[in-house]
Amino acid sequence: MRAHVFTGRGRARLRQEIEAELGNQLGRHAAAAEAYGVEFSHLWSLIAKHMRGGKLIRPVLFLETHDAVRRSMSGAALSNDTPIESSLDRTEAVRIAVAIETLHFAFLLHDDVIDGDVMRRGQKNLVGELVGVDPEMRPITVREDARHWGETGGILAGDLLLSAAHQMFARAEVPHENRLRLLDLLDHTITETTAGELVDVGLSDGVIAPDLNTVLGMTQRKTASYSFELPLRAAAILAGGSIELERALSSAGAHLGLAYQLQDDLMSVFGDPAEHGKDPISDLRGGKQTALVCFARMTSAWPSIEESLGNLQLTVEDADHMRTLFEESGAGRFVRGLIEEQLTACYEVLAVCSDGEQIPAEVRTVLLDLVARIEGRKS
Amino acid sequence: MRAHVFTGRGRARLRQEIEAELGNQLGRHAAAAEAYGVEFSHLWSLIAKHMRGGKLIRPVLFLETHDAVRRSMSGAALSNDTPIESSLDRTEAVRIAVAIETLHFAFLLHDDVIDGDVMRRGQKNLVGELVGVDPEMRPITVREDARHWGETGGILAGDLLLSAAHQMFARAEVPHENRLRLLDLLDHTITETTAGELVDVGLSDGVIAPDLNTVLGMTQRKTASYSFELPLRAAAILAGGSIELERALSSAGAHLGLAYQLQDDLMSVFGDPAEHGKDPISDLRGGKQTALVCFARMTSAWPSIEESLGNLQLTVEDADHMRTLFEESGAGRFVRGLIEEQLTACYEVLAVCSDGEQIPAEVRTVLLDLVARIEGRKS
Repeated sequence: MRAHVFTGRGRARLRQEIEAELGNQLGRHAAAAEAYGVEFSHLWSLIAKHMRGGKLIRPVLFLETHDAVRRSMSGAALSNDTPIESSLDRTEAVRIAVAIETLHFAFLLHDDVIDGDVMRRGQKNLVGELVGVDPEMRPITVREDARHWGETGGILAGDLLLSAAHQMFARAEVPHENRLRLLDLLDHTITETTAGELVDVGLSDGVIAPDLNTVLGMTQRKTASYSFELPLRAAAILAGGSIELERALSSAGAHLGLAYQLQDDLMSVFGDPAEHGKDPISDLRGGKQTALVCFARMTSAWPSIEESLGNLQLTVEDADHMRTLFEESGAGRFVRGLIEEQLTACYEVLAVCSDGEQIPAEVRTVLLDLVARIEGRKS
Repeated sequence: MRAHVFTGRGRARLRQEIEAELGNQLGRHAAAAEAYGVEFSHLWSLIAKHMRGGKLIRPVLFLETHDAVRRSMSGAALSNDTPIESSLDRTEAVRIAVAIETLHFAFLLHDDVIDGDVMRRGQKNLVGELVGVDPEMRPITVREDARHWGETGGILAGDLLLSAAHQMFARAEVPHENRLRLLDLLDHTITETTAGELVDVGLSDGVIAPDLNTVLGMTQRKTASYSFELPLRAAAILAGGSIELERALSSAGAHLGLAYQLQDDLMSVFGDPAEHGKDPISDLRGGKQTALVCFARMTSAWPSIEESLGNLQLTVEDADHMRTLFEESGAGRFVRGLIEEQLTACYEVLAVCSDGEQIPAEVRTVLLDLVARIEGRKS
């Protein structure tokens, strides 16, 4: 039986709580920024604008899991209306949720600078807005300078948010031992994400040979680690869960994260852009090294795919043709198989754990719901 | 009477302690990096190589001041041979010294990426080495890709070190209240430095009008704050000094830092490159907005200076001519006057404090020695 808290309505409430605390934090930074001139204030206002539009997937997952762990530890089968939100511990949890979202946005910003992206989901991103320069400031007449100004803003905004995320973790009002566990987790997450990003760029720049294992490892590290393992493990730590629970959640998170990211790659090529909102050709134009591409490389379809992959002038028709080639080569089926494998592995972690009772029923419900959403995912 | 610990020999010993702990930290990161492939390991080995060559000005200043505060608080006039180094608190202090150096290097890395610099003091910097790509890896054939690989490495290495600095502050084994003071200081420092860097770039890119106050404020924030106020304030906090001592040191640090940076700008134009080791023309070629340039802009020498400032083809003879123009315009004298003002203000802070005994004699000795070194500085 599913608990009410995991319905859409429950999640909307969690989102509201996170948005309120995110607003507090951003407001505090904006107020402090005023002492540093119009450009620095403008940078913080852009950070606030762009951070506020997020889907909050990671912090909501964290908070759902945190609440489930706490409910399970309280021993009672609490109803949806239990005022878990009012406790001091819960305030800390919402702050860590915001820290997780802040870290995510710091990574996005530096990723955009590294990739030279000025758009995200059809809108100008923070770098793009700075390239355009705010009307209050002096207009930049040299195009190269405008670009430089945008990228500088992206690097510095990323630094500010990376620092802000650390500050929130470091100030968590929990027993010092648990704070150290949180800091270890943050350290590990940043190492993994940075190493994954370096390999991603190495693949694009031709420094690293694109074999399947390398690409899968990169996918795991660059995105799954901070998007799934971090929220799940942080939830276990903050709610006072055991090391065993943290390990089980880490393992489940790794499988879920890889499945989620592989599906993302798949949707970018085969999905309906009206549903997932991404540029339907950008991965193909960018020549992004994904599991799909790695598999196709080993098939007879490769010479035809290679001809068009990474072609910046790729048309919609070319892209359609490439989709057919990817499907005929078996690459689509192969990646769908990988996703299925990861989700099965996640079910196994949950099943094994249910025997040993490492993952309480309330927490398992959150994860099973997530697996179901990933299976039926279109955006 | 000067205490022995502040002689060159004493400082060399502090430097050794810091180098040993820096080596420990870098070794730990290098070992952890091995699990993430040759490129990530290579990145950490470059970080280690370039961090190890530093002059350690900031961490030595921190440690000297820390020891002086502790000596003064112990009440006894301790000799140079007191084994202050063996205490647990001292281990923490050395770690914070390394954190300060780590933060400095994180800023340098992102600064180099933002400025597009591949050299520092006549040698390839970390970005420059990555642009050349390590022989163990696949060679990059496209120049644009090599550049991109270098800048990506610079951004990610900066992120790793910014995180590492936060981790060291957050884990300081001091009473929680003092840890929060340290975290506040770190937060403030990063805000100041980032805001200063943004204005510096805004001046170069033409977003911000270069008036003298803006340039002086930028100089203060971008460099003085983290190079002088941070080490001095962190020393007061970690050694258990009062809020009053921290404030007095903060004020002295602000004056010293601005004097130091103004002198740096002056040396870049007028100094002997054989002594200070910098490219003697790069500031002029780069058209850097300094107090020198701002003053000259208000004089009749400006049209002639403006003609050559920012000219990438500037010859040694052109630079000599510009030096004469700067001197004749009175800009050189003006900036030397500003430096004198800052040092005088620093003396006043020390004098006022000596009346109220806010700054103990041992600490004043460290600061007076620093003033003397800045006054006689050639590199």
